Amino acid sequence: MENRQIVIAELPKDALTPEHFRQTTAAMPEANEGQVLLKVVLMSIDAANRSWMKGATYRAAVNAGDAMPTYAICEVVESKSDRLAKGDIVAAEATWSDYIMADARKCEKLPKVEQLSRLMSVYGIAGKTAYHGLISVGQPIAGETVLVSAAAGSVGGYVGQIAKALGCRVVGIAGGPEKCAWVKEHLGFDDCIDYRAPGMSKALRAACPDGVDVYFDNVGGTVLETALFAMNEKGRIVCCGAISQYDTETPTGPRNLPGLVVVKRLRMEGFIVMDWAHNDAKALRALQTWVDNGQIKVTEDIVEGLENAPHALIGLLAGDNKGKRMVRVATDPA
Amino acid sequence: MENRQIVIAELPKDALTPEHFRQTTAAMPEANEGQVLLKVVLMSIDAANRSWMKGATYRAAVNAGDAMPTYAICEVVESKSDRLAKGDIVAAEATWSDYIMADARKCEKLPKVEQLSRLMSVYGIAGKTAYHGLISVGQPIAGETVLVSAAAGSVGGYVGQIAKALGCRVVGIAGGPEKCAWVKEHLGFDDCIDYRAPGMSKALRAACPDGVDVYFDNVGGTVLETALFAMNEKGRIVCCGAISQYDTETPTGPRNLPGLVVVKRLRMEGFIVMDWAHNDAKALRALQTWVDNGQIKVTEDIVEGLENAPHALIGLLAGDNKGKRMVRVATDPA
Repeated sequence: MENRQIVIAELPKDALTPEHFRQTTAAMPEANEGQVLLKVVLMSIDAANRSWMKGATYRAAVNAGDAMPTYAICEVVESKSDRLAKGDIVAAEATWSDYIMADARKCEKLPKVEQLSRLMSVYGIAGKTAYHGLISVGQPIAGETVLVSAAAGSVGGYVGQIAKALGCRVVGIAGGPEKCAWVKEHLGFDDCIDYRAPGMSKALRAACPDGVDVYFDNVGGTVLETALFAMNEKGRIVCCGAISQYDTETPTGPRNLPGLVVVKRLRMEGFIVMDWAHNDAKALRALQTWVDNGQIKVTEDIVEGLENAPHALIGLLAGDNKGKRMVRVATDPA
Repeated sequence: MENRQIVIAELPKDALTPEHFRQTTAAMPEANEGQVLLKVVLMSIDAANRSWMKGATYRAAVNAGDAMPTYAICEVVESKSDRLAKGDIVAAEATWSDYIMADARKCEKLPKVEQLSRLMSVYGIAGKTAYHGLISVGQPIAGETVLVSAAAGSVGGYVGQIAKALGCRVVGIAGGPEKCAWVKEHLGFDDCIDYRAPGMSKALRAACPDGVDVYFDNVGGTVLETALFAMNEKGRIVCCGAISQYDTETPTGPRNLPGLVVVKRLRMEGFIVMDWAHNDAKALRALQTWVDNGQIKVTEDIVEGLENAPHALIGLLAGDNKGKRMVRVATDPA
């Protein structure tokens, strides 16, 4: 058994490129008492991977020489703990590797579903992030207008579909005409605005004739600045991410902050999915209901092969994914 | 009876100067059916006056040739309405004038207190803004650290004193060593940081060893940017104003927005005092209690004479006031 691993060769100063990564062969990890040896099956590829390279956030900074950390779905291949048995499927903090070793108590045992990728998309971090952020932070109600950036992305697509299920008018923001068409036609958004086209502000006004009540922000930067002008009084901005600010050393804040927050009495609130773990069971039941009755289409964007993880991340930052991006390192166990 | 009036000669493009105003003599207004003739006694001088000159906000924009609008305490000198009688004291939307005419139904009848200025400071817009913003938006609890900018200003001073009464550690931000000393010694803040001195970020960290739980922001700009770094997870930012951004055509947004809002799961929320009018009775009872037991010192900064209103506003924007600034146009009626 070989244990390939992708490590960070050098921290990026500006845009991330393949040269910032290096593939090596690591020693096969050995499980000690209380630990398990895990075979990585699917790795979640997130904009957050890039933000970890910028310094400590809600987790420690990632440095040159480190294997890239990742949230992963894994199969237990050897267990030295009573908590888990060989063949169990778990979610774990892993790295970009074929195999990792983990403390059994830090692994979350997952149900054995037919397609493990579902546990990373709609029933996993993407669907739960969309649900908790929209429902608990954004608090939209039928008839309100919900605007979502990165609408073709992993979280944005679910946010919009949930908001539609709740009876809201839903407008997406995505990059390029092809993605915008997909968001409207495949995901069923009422409209979708191309942020790369000129006249975004005018397009936004046209798509949201009654203004915006909830803006689910995945990008920050100038898109947030434009959205702020369209917000209604007492509007809510769900701060889920700032992907436009991660891949650069010169971030720019929206120039209309905090002025418009005062004038329009807005609420901007950040969250991360773990904050709402106490509501996960409710979230999963709701997501399952919407999937079962056809109100949510599951979107997954699976890149095959550990060796392609750097490209999968670089592409994600450039916005080339549709739906939840993950890397398949091994096939689902039978 | 003469009716002096101060009108806007020209809208400012950048910093406000006396040349942007002009004093004229207007015709004495006449009250029609349902209206009252009001003698202006005290005018509230607010940073918001400047922001109204930048375009429509929660009120219509103010233009060249207009008399400057103001919140004022007035005496009814003639009434053509059953609602009000000669000699009544009212709060009204006025202009920078000796006399104005108003619809009786738009005037708020005030109690006859010994010092009318109290109805503009602690029991007026300043005290109520501090109360509603801190209590209802910021939601601090004993033991938390509350940071307040413009701490020597009308609202900031009450915010800090209320937070002290609640058992919080209270740190102010003000301009210059003399003001900082006054905030600490006279108002009883635990500490006060001079934003004009170098090393504000370090001073903030030293003054808030446990981080900041609630930041009451009156200024926006770089002070907000610095405060964001000091916020604790789940911290709340009460957006009350952005005085640093009003007197310029080139506002700058905090560069760490929305990144830190996500990472620290912050809530930023704007409000204006009228949003919470349904809680005014509770606010007044609380403020009265704190004043009566000595936990709140009333701070007022009264500039004498209508003709000095432009200087009073320009000075306020430069931060030369301590406590609630107002202009006295006429003496309190006997």
